[in-house]
Amino acid sequence: MNRSFDEKLALFAKLAVHEGLGLARGQELIVAAELIAAPLVRLIAAEAYRAGAKNVEVLWSDPELTLARFREGSDEAIAYAPNWLIDGVARAHRENAARLAISSTDPGLLARVAPDRVATQSKVQGAARKPVSDLVAGSAINWCVIGAASPAWAARVFPDLPTDRALAKLWDAIFLTSRVEEPDPVAAWVAHSESLEARVTTLEAARFDALHFTGPGTDLSVGLVEGHRWAGGRGRAKNGILCSPNIPTEEVFCMPHRLRVDGVVSSTMPLSVRGQMVDGIRVTFKEGQAVEATARQGEATFRKLLATDEHAGRLGEVALVPHSSKVRQAGVLFLNTLYDENAASHIAFGASYGENLSGYAEMSEAQRVARGANDSIVHVDWMIGSDRIDVDGVAKDGARTPLMRAGEWA
Amino acid sequence: MNRSFDEKLALFAKLAVHEGLGLARGQELIVAAELIAAPLVRLIAAEAYRAGAKNVEVLWSDPELTLARFREGSDEAIAYAPNWLIDGVARAHRENAARLAISSTDPGLLARVAPDRVATQSKVQGAARKPVSDLVAGSAINWCVIGAASPAWAARVFPDLPTDRALAKLWDAIFLTSRVEEPDPVAAWVAHSESLEARVTTLEAARFDALHFTGPGTDLSVGLVEGHRWAGGRGRAKNGILCSPNIPTEEVFCMPHRLRVDGVVSSTMPLSVRGQMVDGIRVTFKEGQAVEATARQGEATFRKLLATDEHAGRLGEVALVPHSSKVRQAGVLFLNTLYDENAASHIAFGASYGENLSGYAEMSEAQRVARGANDSIVHVDWMIGSDRIDVDGVAKDGARTPLMRAGEWA
Repeated sequence: MNRSFDEKLALFAKLAVHEGLGLARGQELIVAAELIAAPLVRLIAAEAYRAGAKNVEVLWSDPELTLARFREGSDEAIAYAPNWLIDGVARAHRENAARLAISSTDPGLLARVAPDRVATQSKVQGAARKPVSDLVAGSAINWCVIGAASPAWAARVFPDLPTDRALAKLWDAIFLTSRVEEPDPVAAWVAHSESLEARVTTLEAARFDALHFTGPGTDLSVGLVEGHRWAGGRGRAKNGILCSPNIPTEEVFCMPHRLRVDGVVSSTMPLSVRGQMVDGIRVTFKEGQAVEATARQGEATFRKLLATDEHAGRLGEVALVPHSSKVRQAGVLFLNTLYDENAASHIAFGASYGENLSGYAEMSEAQRVARGANDSIVHVDWMIGSDRIDVDGVAKDGARTPLMRAGEWA
Repeated sequence: MNRSFDEKLALFAKLAVHEGLGLARGQELIVAAELIAAPLVRLIAAEAYRAGAKNVEVLWSDPELTLARFREGSDEAIAYAPNWLIDGVARAHRENAARLAISSTDPGLLARVAPDRVATQSKVQGAARKPVSDLVAGSAINWCVIGAASPAWAARVFPDLPTDRALAKLWDAIFLTSRVEEPDPVAAWVAHSESLEARVTTLEAARFDALHFTGPGTDLSVGLVEGHRWAGGRGRAKNGILCSPNIPTEEVFCMPHRLRVDGVVSSTMPLSVRGQMVDGIRVTFKEGQAVEATARQGEATFRKLLATDEHAGRLGEVALVPHSSKVRQAGVLFLNTLYDENAASHIAFGASYGENLSGYAEMSEAQRVARGANDSIVHVDWMIGSDRIDVDGVAKDGARTPLMRAGEWA
């Protein structure tokens, strides 16, 4: 399609409000975005008001202010989170506000900050934000994450290009993977969602007891919780609204049992953890716990992540993504999990998602844990899929069904 | 001084943090600013962290989002305020967070919006924000308001100049009036504050019963409350911190008695009320209440302001500013009250300031009203001084003392 950048941006805003959020008339919308995303935020706000939003409140962030805190802030500042604000946001979501996060993060923003300070601040923020992340992870309200290119992010992705060309190329990749380049982006998004939802139906019916990943540096068994629910594509939030929590999304995902993960697994792509690059991860699991964890780059950051809280070293998600996904086709290493996790099968350390366990909302915390759900203030995906990885579904009686061969659906 | 713009901006940031706020080590700082002020906000945040702030939280606003609400928002959106956020901010201030507001407002932002919609939104926001404005007006914490030039504001002030020249001239005027052009801005600010504080001491000692303004279109008696306190320059907040609530400031101000204002008064400068221009105001007071109010421009906006709540048509402040003030010398009509109120004597409709009444903090609401304090969700200053206005101080026995002649201290 021969559309101008402004036309694409407007289509992207519509896609986010209507398909991403499914924003309802009279609903409030909270947007989390960096200052650099202002042009997109303004289009989204206007679209949301046209859709009948009673308020669009933008929680702006600025990487320069984040850096100022790390560079100039006292130890007290590093160990502080504004509960007065976070509690207010949690209240808004309990009062049914929808949530849109726009990711523009420079994946190497905190490269020069001491990992100790980053870990302390992440832990404090994560703990303070838990009421909000629990509402989101529990699908209490309709929510969505999208991306917006920023010069700093684009420069990491295309370090050899001048800034304006890098920025344009990153926007192209965002529009492509979000289906904004399609003749009718909304129709294309719906068709794509339906194909993921069909895959979910097939996997649901199989009632696998575990998934088994094999490939170079990987021989990993991931037990699934009993009563697990596969998810992918759109999901219905508890407030009754159908939303697409990620744009783009290419994954179908399920809940690992917190005690039933065993073997060794190697990462297949680098990732940014808390503003610092981590690559070449290799982890050995025993009864669900990461007992050995190394990384060729960013090992200190990675190990601090796993030590964030008691269960940060256990899995909360396992996801299957074919090697031929639209995100992989874009041919870009985004260094941003929203995108990269949709280019490869992946697992996540930390909190599991309530939608992956039947009856989750009605269970006590103790019941959830007994069933194998994992609770943590972190949720960090990392990619373990490639065109050299096979995945089997394993039934309770040990029978194996080939799910993926050389990274593609079998 | 031959300083670069960046040097002046950095000096301005230091002045705001140290003299404006008197920010204490370990204190949190809430900054309210438009996106356009980001370069100044970043300097202020870094300075605040160096001064030991435990957090700098910026509540960003964006005129485009404000306009999107008015243009595209439903009636429900116009009648809504986010209490979850405002209550959080009030909590932060009760927990001793300091407050810095940075004004960059386009004085004609809402010129094309129906006054009804503006009045409804202002009233709802004002009512929701009352817990915050009460804490500020009651000097519970150290606070400060400064300005930052924006292209939209500069274009209204210098409509005949190209944007970049208009912006540069507005910044020049901001730096000049804020004493940033002085060899030592902090020393100059302190000396200026001390001269205002000396004026306060003289007026305090006089114990006037009323002020009497006379000039073209003006013959107004403003009764002062018993136990009134003049204020000006720096003030000590209840948390013990000495701060300069306005940069710049040229005024000394006092509390009118809500029932003892009589006569007629004419405005001497235009002003922006809720994003709409108002000019040529003429008001007749009887026993404190505005009983007739007309304006040559923006009368609908002005009358809606006075009808905001029960006491919006009574005065909360009377202030004396010599015609030779630094702001007047700048020779710029700023169309922004932070500046223009410091170019001329003025009065304000709406809420009075607790610091202007001895023992205010210990009084009940009923006691305050009985003493003549005025309570309202609005506080709008308008200029009534010029080089043709005389002001007398009137003693209880009717004896008159000339305070100002032709706009200058007598």
